[in-house]
Amino acid sequence: MTIIALTTDFGLTDGYVGIMKGVILSIAPHACLVDLSHDIAPQDVRQASHVLARAAPYFPGGTIHLAVVDPGVGSHRRPLLVITQRARYVGPDNGIFSHVLGQGDAQAWTLDQPRYWLPQVSQTFHGRDIFAPVAAHLAAGVEPERLGRRIHDPVCLALPEPCRRPDGRIRGEIVYVDHFGNLISNVPADWVARGGWSCRIAGRSAPLVSAYAEVADAAPAGLVGSSGAVELAVRNGNASRTFNVGTGEKLELWPMA
Amino acid sequence: MTIIALTTDFGLTDGYVGIMKGVILSIAPHACLVDLSHDIAPQDVRQASHVLARAAPYFPGGTIHLAVVDPGVGSHRRPLLVITQRARYVGPDNGIFSHVLGQGDAQAWTLDQPRYWLPQVSQTFHGRDIFAPVAAHLAAGVEPERLGRRIHDPVCLALPEPCRRPDGRIRGEIVYVDHFGNLISNVPADWVARGGWSCRIAGRSAPLVSAYAEVADAAPAGLVGSSGAVELAVRNGNASRTFNVGTGEKLELWPMA
Amino acid sequence: MTIIALTTDFGLTDGYVGIMKGVILSIAPHACLVDLSHDIAPQDVRQASHVLARAAPYFPGGTIHLAVVDPGVGSHRRPLLVITQRARYVGPDNGIFSHVLGQGDAQAWTLDQPRYWLPQVSQTFHGRDIFAPVAAHLAAGVEPERLGRRIHDPVCLALPEPCRRPDGRIRGEIVYVDHFGNLISNVPADWVARGGWSCRIAGRSAPLVSAYAEVADAAPAGLVGSSGAVELAVRNGNASRTFNVGTGEKLELWPMA
Repeated sequence: MTIIALTTDFGLTDGYVGIMKGVILSIAPHACLVDLSHDIAPQDVRQASHVLARAAPYFPGGTIHLAVVDPGVGSHRRPLLVITQRARYVGPDNGIFSHVLGQGDAQAWTLDQPRYWLPQVSQTFHGRDIFAPVAAHLAAGVEPERLGRRIHDPVCLALPEPCRRPDGRIRGEIVYVDHFGNLISNVPADWVARGGWSCRIAGRSAPLVSAYAEVADAAPAGLVGSSGAVELAVRNGNASRTFNVGTGEKLELWPMA
Repeated sequence: MTIIALTTDFGLTDGYVGIMKGVILSIAPHACLVDLSHDIAPQDVRQASHVLARAAPYFPGGTIHLAVVDPGVGSHRRPLLVITQRARYVGPDNGIFSHVLGQGDAQAWTLDQPRYWLPQVSQTFHGRDIFAPVAAHLAAGVEPERLGRRIHDPVCLALPEPCRRPDGRIRGEIVYVDHFGNLISNVPADWVARGGWSCRIAGRSAPLVSAYAEVADAAPAGLVGSSGAVELAVRNGNASRTFNVGTGEKLELWPMA
Repeated sequence: MTIIALTTDFGLTDGYVGIMKGVILSIAPHACLVDLSHDIAPQDVRQASHVLARAAPYFPGGTIHLAVVDPGVGSHRRPLLVITQRARYVGPDNGIFSHVLGQGDAQAWTLDQPRYWLPQVSQTFHGRDIFAPVAAHLAAGVEPERLGRRIHDPVCLALPEPCRRPDGRIRGEIVYVDHFGNLISNVPADWVARGGWSCRIAGRSAPLVSAYAEVADAAPAGLVGSSGAVELAVRNGNASRTFNVGTGEKLELWPMA
């Protein structure tokens, strides 16, 4: 029973996600459907790429990630299939799979075989008309080669890179803000694995601790979060509101003496 | 494996939808549950009818749509089953299936057989006590005749009709506003299939184009949307906020010279 | 096919719930996943306990409730398994199962066997690293004794108790406010089963009726709600906004002459 995990910016009010599921189940009745997120900010391809990259390692091998954040729908942007050793990805070729494509073992196809789409394709809802049916046919066992042709230039967003300076300081950036207001950076855990560290963001400092419980209620703390990156949190509070910062904010870490 | 698709105004916070699913799975353990929407505006029967009508064609034949937006719960409003060639519908007899009932091949039953309900029926949650168990028994193979008796007067809301004037102009109405702020009208695609059209809403004009990509960012455009009706959109923006209009707003289209 | 029902304060935006589902399906591919709520207010253990208690009776016997509202993650709070005759519960030992533990037939285990967790356990996301895998192993048939050891002191919150005074009056408290703004109290239905009653809240009075339909639109009414407790509602309105009250507000009921 193949899993199809869905990520969109459609919201859950209008039934658009349900429609995609109806299309999938019409083609692949035994697919196991899992919602990853439908509350990606409208047209925020970068956020979707981050959410996908973080979640994919925890799904069974062969999971199909159907991801539709598609500001270019109806234009010439290509429909895309990406396959890695671990998973398969179906969605628009607009950077939504940037994190995945950066991992080295990814192969890409442009989906150009309308026989695997719905008979009528609208100009505004390729999630329903192209991506859902292709994901379903993939789940039902259709080979990638029949769905499209190999390409070698899928769109990749430039993702901000952290850097280590000669004096030992680390500069990174907040790349995601979650539901709890935690500020997730692009600084990987192993860069701060040894010794004590302090961090500074928006002119304020906080120690790097190993668990929320080490600081007082409402106190800010940096720690290695569950995504394997440094994040800023406020214990039982909301760091994004406390610091009044969001995605793109710079972060500095330095080793304690 | 029969699909039961759920549409309610319950929201997802309180667990009411989960309770209905628990009831269904207690009776029909192999039912495949799909959420269509649980964010229908409280008591907005008309919105639910629209969402259902738009989604139902994309589900496999025989799908059971369990729809509960039920301001008359606890009063004398009847519980209803509607069956068309394509699908089955269970919910209150309050107009929630108006679009479906208008399609010609619909047959209706009032659900009056308490043996297919939960043993105790509350005055406030027939979704749990009547509709979910009936939908589950239907999925498990119980015949409609055992669940209730045929009726010929289910409640139908008067839906606004678009009109074509002698001078070629079309007058329609916004019947739905979606998550992206797109303004979806009741003017069918085939009325504007030939030639160029302009549209006017709230004192402002926009061309009718064939894809978002034909207009500049943040520019308004009319186009045939994925529901097969004319809709107003703002490219990478929110038409409802831009025009400051919502459901019920009038729309005019006229052929370009 | 064992049901695993999920209740969290994770929201649906970030993919955290989807990650837990990926972990579960990696271990127990045939588990049937149902969402109860992911919009518990951040860190509101009491609300989660109430939602669980209300929903659990409507799920099939043996259902596993995976509940993660976990302000103490990364501290010394224990991971917990609770089993009753009807259901199984997995989550942090912080009071989230208070209503269940108060029912008398509950047995508790602390989960101390890391072989049933993910290989790497973060300090911030035990839902993914401990609770989801344990729930999945439980669904796959692993015995409780292998997952942990019996304990007899799980954390229980003090829940407010209603009282009956010698003059026949009842004093209770609002313990939950739902999506519709209905104010749900802790006064059980059978306390008001006989005779007529009036209720007072926030200095205003309302009759106790048997269905919304007995009062006019926008009028307040007390009634026995679907949870088997007295609740205050405003017909086709929002009682919480009308009365401007929430959880913790006192309520008084008295028998009518």
